[in-house]
Amino acid sequence: MEVKERQIDEFGFVRLDAHMADDMSVVNAARVSFARHQEELDEAAKGLINFLMRERHGTPFEHNAFRFHIKCPIFVAREWFRHRIGSFNEFSARYSMVNDEFFVPAEHDVRTQVGKPGAYHFDPVEKDVADRAIERIKNINEMAYGTYKELINDGVAKELARTVLPMGMYTQFYWTVNARSLMNFLSLRLDKSAQVDIRRYATRVEIVLAQTMPVTYKAWVENGMVCP
Amino acid sequence: MEVKERQIDEFGFVRLDAHMADDMSVVNAARVSFARHQEELDEAAKGLINFLMRERHGTPFEHNAFRFHIKCPIFVAREWFRHRIGSFNEFSARYSMVNDEFFVPAEHDVRTQVGKPGAYHFDPVEKDVADRAIERIKNINEMAYGTYKELINDGVAKELARTVLPMGMYTQFYWTVNARSLMNFLSLRLDKSAQVDIRRYATRVEIVLAQTMPVTYKAWVENGMVCP
Amino acid sequence: MEVKERQIDEFGFVRLDAHMADDMSVVNAARVSFARHQEELDEAAKGLINFLMRERHGTPFEHNAFRFHIKCPIFVAREWFRHRIGSFNEFSARYSMVNDEFFVPAEHDVRTQVGKPGAYHFDPVEKDVADRAIERIKNINEMAYGTYKELINDGVAKELARTVLPMGMYTQFYWTVNARSLMNFLSLRLDKSAQVDIRRYATRVEIVLAQTMPVTYKAWVENGMVCP
Amino acid sequence: MEVKERQIDEFGFVRLDAHMADDMSVVNAARVSFARHQEELDEAAKGLINFLMRERHGTPFEHNAFRFHIKCPIFVAREWFRHRIGSFNEFSARYSMVNDEFFVPAEHDVRTQVGKPGAYHFDPVEKDVADRAIERIKNINEMAYGTYKELINDGVAKELARTVLPMGMYTQFYWTVNARSLMNFLSLRLDKSAQVDIRRYATRVEIVLAQTMPVTYKAWVENGMVCP
Repeated sequence: MEVKERQIDEFGFVRLDAHMADDMSVVNAARVSFARHQEELDEAAKGLINFLMRERHGTPFEHNAFRFHIKCPIFVAREWFRHRIGSFNEFSARYSMVNDEFFVPAEHDVRTQVGKPGAYHFDPVEKDVADRAIERIKNINEMAYGTYKELINDGVAKELARTVLPMGMYTQFYWTVNARSLMNFLSLRLDKSAQVDIRRYATRVEIVLAQTMPVTYKAWVENGMVCP
Repeated sequence: MEVKERQIDEFGFVRLDAHMADDMSVVNAARVSFARHQEELDEAAKGLINFLMRERHGTPFEHNAFRFHIKCPIFVAREWFRHRIGSFNEFSARYSMVNDEFFVPAEHDVRTQVGKPGAYHFDPVEKDVADRAIERIKNINEMAYGTYKELINDGVAKELARTVLPMGMYTQFYWTVNARSLMNFLSLRLDKSAQVDIRRYATRVEIVLAQTMPVTYKAWVENGMVCP
Repeated sequence: MEVKERQIDEFGFVRLDAHMADDMSVVNAARVSFARHQEELDEAAKGLINFLMRERHGTPFEHNAFRFHIKCPIFVAREWFRHRIGSFNEFSARYSMVNDEFFVPAEHDVRTQVGKPGAYHFDPVEKDVADRAIERIKNINEMAYGTYKELINDGVAKELARTVLPMGMYTQFYWTVNARSLMNFLSLRLDKSAQVDIRRYATRVEIVLAQTMPVTYKAWVENGMVCP
Repeated sequence: MEVKERQIDEFGFVRLDAHMADDMSVVNAARVSFARHQEELDEAAKGLINFLMRERHGTPFEHNAFRFHIKCPIFVAREWFRHRIGSFNEFSARYSMVNDEFFVPAEHDVRTQVGKPGAYHFDPVEKDVADRAIERIKNINEMAYGTYKELINDGVAKELARTVLPMGMYTQFYWTVNARSLMNFLSLRLDKSAQVDIRRYATRVEIVLAQTMPVTYKAWVENGMVCP
């Protein structure tokens, strides 16, 4: 079961730094309830993973860990950090200079909002609107960064100067999370109601799950991508 | 034991929306380990609270809840949301227009960073530097908000337009938390190493604790403001 | 929407000690994302609660708290304490004498296990089997309590003597939890696959939810009793 | 810095099943706040770990995972499961037969409780008291297990029959936890106020930390074994 990679924005990345994760850990965590242990991922083991997912026995999916190093715009990171079951350490602009790296949408990503509350969707805009938007976004980012540098050159503390930087500024962080919480993240952030910009990051995370725990991933997809 | 209120920034507030919190709940949660219950906060009960705090028995401080409604700049909220033991619901700029409300430091708050890594502190700047900083911050906020409105007027989706808004933009949220997690928040966010802007908000939270759970608050202060 | 109370075992109880919980808190936590607030639980508000439940927006259901005082057998408490989102303080037999209170099933509750792994169910047994079982359970409880007292009378530490007491021994504890975690508890512990003895306790908890947050409760039932 | 192994009880064990843990992960999680990364654990890195521990910056110690397989008596497991930051899957006696394995203290471990509330300690007992206690504990365990088997042979469901088994019965479980939560566990369960029986298990866990994250372990010991 392969996930198609989608293009991420300019400076961003999702890098798997380390992991302790495989399908066997799910099986053995579940089998301890019968005081059993096995080494091989046979058909019965695969059936068990599917059963656990379908019946929403979530805890056996927690005995693993993924450590990611991620770079993304702050408006994406802000949604990411809402996921409380997991660990975060992030770049701080209090004491370090921020780089001149800001989110600018690709032309085909400039969009307009359509529909009614609770059921919005997004349509592409005309090329001239997109071009104008990109130009304006680049301009204001540049000006904000200029002001940021002026403040610092004038001796103003970084922790204060940073307050003028836009939400499109890139940040980076480490995120350590188990598969259960990760599937919960994916359920919400791959959803069509999620902002497209975070969905691309979520897809990168999804690929990691699919590669390290393929049976779990398949069971998750086949059971509606709902967190167990 | 009274906490001196410090001035908060222009648009911000910390409002206690509801609470289920008193010192007796600590006593009774602890006394259940002896199958005992009492109604009155006598001297023995006060002694028990002090003992629990000193010996770092944290769980009896969890059987209560505070629901706050808070408005603050995003760079303050970002630090707030790092506290995972608690519940948050926040304003979203994906579907709602953002107001023209941005953080601007008071003149006496414009500061410069002094010292070495791990031991920074902050000194005030000359009046002309402060004036210039305030002017620049106001200017760029105004320009960012202008670009934001232009993008929206041109039909660009709010979720995209918001990416140009600065970290000083105000947001608002509900925060529900128990006293143990709240004391942990205060330990970190009242600390002299915390950014002064969040320390003012933390002081407002501290006042609420001091008023609703005075014995707990006193014991916490007398035991070094370290979380039990 | 009323829940029918089921009989609990002999010494057990579920007592609501305090709460900070109503349906309006759900509405206002959700509406803060639009920077709105309302005082009245009108039809739109009820619709919103149903929408949140259906679309699995769980966080607005967290801004409340229930503090319970519960007494139940240890084999029930052991399942209860697996629910990590919430606070517990429990009776400790390390330093306090345990009372002579142990779980004995009612005659109609003595049951046999039928069926295959993953799909077990339980049938009643013949009257004589039930009578014999009850007699045996009473006997061994009595003997265990006798040994416990002998050990203590001989000077053995309570923390060591307690190790002979059966899992049917009663314990008591405080449990503070929010509605989201409480609904998760109910989803699992009211389920027909849960042990009948904890299901009765769960029903008592369910009644509290139904009475304090009736709109939330109704929406939860109508959406399959699955946690949002 | 070596930890001296203490003898564990008869059937128990603490087995490290897998881990993703080293001192470098702490350093890199902390250094991401300066957008820096390093490969080598040099003196500066060691100093940083000590600084983080001393200043109670806890989050960098979370980016790792230990998966343990543990077997211990239920009265030990009950204390273990109170640690909510971590994942558990345990043997269930609802559907599986329990083995004839129960906790019996070694002669030198039979003890009496001395002192006043809040400051108890334990002294050894005379040989004849110890012998009598061990005999009584063995006897009642045997009788309880006998009753358990009689109930099952008579057709009574395992989930009901198990309620007569003593708290000294052995259970087993998987526990996955990060170093920060693990140090918190050790702070409480190695403490002289903890029951000696869980302290021995905690020592086994401590050895794993000392071997996998020696710099972190040393810093933790030198800073008073208090959780950061």
